[in-house]
Amino acid sequence: MDDLVKAVLAFRDARDWKQFHNPKDLAISITLEAAELLEHFQWKTPGEVDSFLGIEENRRRLGEEMADVLILLVSLADAAGLDLLEAARAKLRENAAKYPVERAKGSAKKYHELAP
Amino acid sequence: MDDLVKAVLAFRDARDWKQFHNPKDLAISITLEAAELLEHFQWKTPGEVDSFLGIEENRRRLGEEMADVLILLVSLADAAGLDLLEAARAKLRENAAKYPVERAKGSAKKYHELAP
Amino acid sequence: MDDLVKAVLAFRDARDWKQFHNPKDLAISITLEAAELLEHFQWKTPGEVDSFLGIEENRRRLGEEMADVLILLVSLADAAGLDLLEAARAKLRENAAKYPVERAKGSAKKYHELAP
Amino acid sequence: MDDLVKAVLAFRDARDWKQFHNPKDLAISITLEAAELLEHFQWKTPGEVDSFLGIEENRRRLGEEMADVLILLVSLADAAGLDLLEAARAKLRENAAKYPVERAKGSAKKYHELAP
Repeated sequence: MDDLVKAVLAFRDARDWKQFHNPKDLAISITLEAAELLEHFQWKTPGEVDSFLGIEENRRRLGEEMADVLILLVSLADAAGLDLLEAARAKLRENAAKYPVERAKGSAKKYHELAP
Repeated sequence: MDDLVKAVLAFRDARDWKQFHNPKDLAISITLEAAELLEHFQWKTPGEVDSFLGIEENRRRLGEEMADVLILLVSLADAAGLDLLEAARAKLRENAAKYPVERAKGSAKKYHELAP
Repeated sequence: MDDLVKAVLAFRDARDWKQFHNPKDLAISITLEAAELLEHFQWKTPGEVDSFLGIEENRRRLGEEMADVLILLVSLADAAGLDLLEAARAKLRENAAKYPVERAKGSAKKYHELAP
Repeated sequence: MDDLVKAVLAFRDARDWKQFHNPKDLAISITLEAAELLEHFQWKTPGEVDSFLGIEENRRRLGEEMADVLILLVSLADAAGLDLLEAARAKLRENAAKYPVERAKGSAKKYHELAP
């Protein structure tokens, strides 16, 4: 991941693109790329999703859309002045507190709906 | 990142949540979390975005939304059977070919609009 | 619809909100409200969607999210200087040309995949 | 609007497409079309948005994306068994109660932040 962050920022800086990377448009771009990712699943039943993902070329194209989202997350983290990996670790700790194993196991409920 | 992937999957498996993690709903969730991220920038001018990001608590909350997107990307990559980091590296190589430094430097144009 | 357009614009003007309604943020808002609409379907199987929609209060809440999208479409059409209903009629004519009944009937294919 | 609803449903039924129009995928489609609408504003400053909207062909293309969202809203309202225009009227009444003119005039605050 460290190498990815370095590669993403080096790519941007070699092209002098930091000037375009304002946080609001980066956040817009993340939403747009997430929509392109979702488009692959539109109108598909679970069975059709499985067939689709059984084909390597489809997984490669899906990976491309996911990569776009990840690269933009890295760019936004830099533009906004925050550490993405540290944020993810903090969020996992918070989720662990909200969804204790003994109450959340096998349940799709939101944390405020879990039995106490 | 390897540690993050392990932590995300261990969190999911300890709660027996893999059964709920079908790729289509994970892709929906990525779009929804991306929208929550974008919501922080809604109705804000560039100056207001700067003021917003100057406050540590706001950066922390933004990081939380970004963490949600990243954690879901890791979950979807596992559910879809692909390697997210490898996909990001492949995408960076492809972007480098589409946007050569000597033609893309300082330009916000899309690759098909760049001077040949 | 004419009455709705008048009501939406009168609501906005009585509060002197036209100054905030720039097209870019309205487009962002449409995406965010669409995501809130989609959230009602997240993690639901087709059977669970049917059960959900069988309850009047749920239909009312769904209608609220759809109303938010519609009201914002009307606001954006005004801010961008275009006629939403005329645009919808033109789009239906275009769709009719792209998907002729005799070729599109009962098929979920995109127009460029239809048999000629 | 009544005519639009009739035209949208007649278009769908002539092609026997009701079978594909499940509410969840229609809600996904609304999000995807909203993203295509938003894409027109990506990376644009307010001045660039104005220039863009000053060109009739751009307004026509924007109108097309907005028409896609509207047509899908009409389709989803039918699939979910609710009245879109009535929902919009109810929402406007609710907004009027949340944002009384004397307190909301000229303010971009959310209703829970308005001075009492």
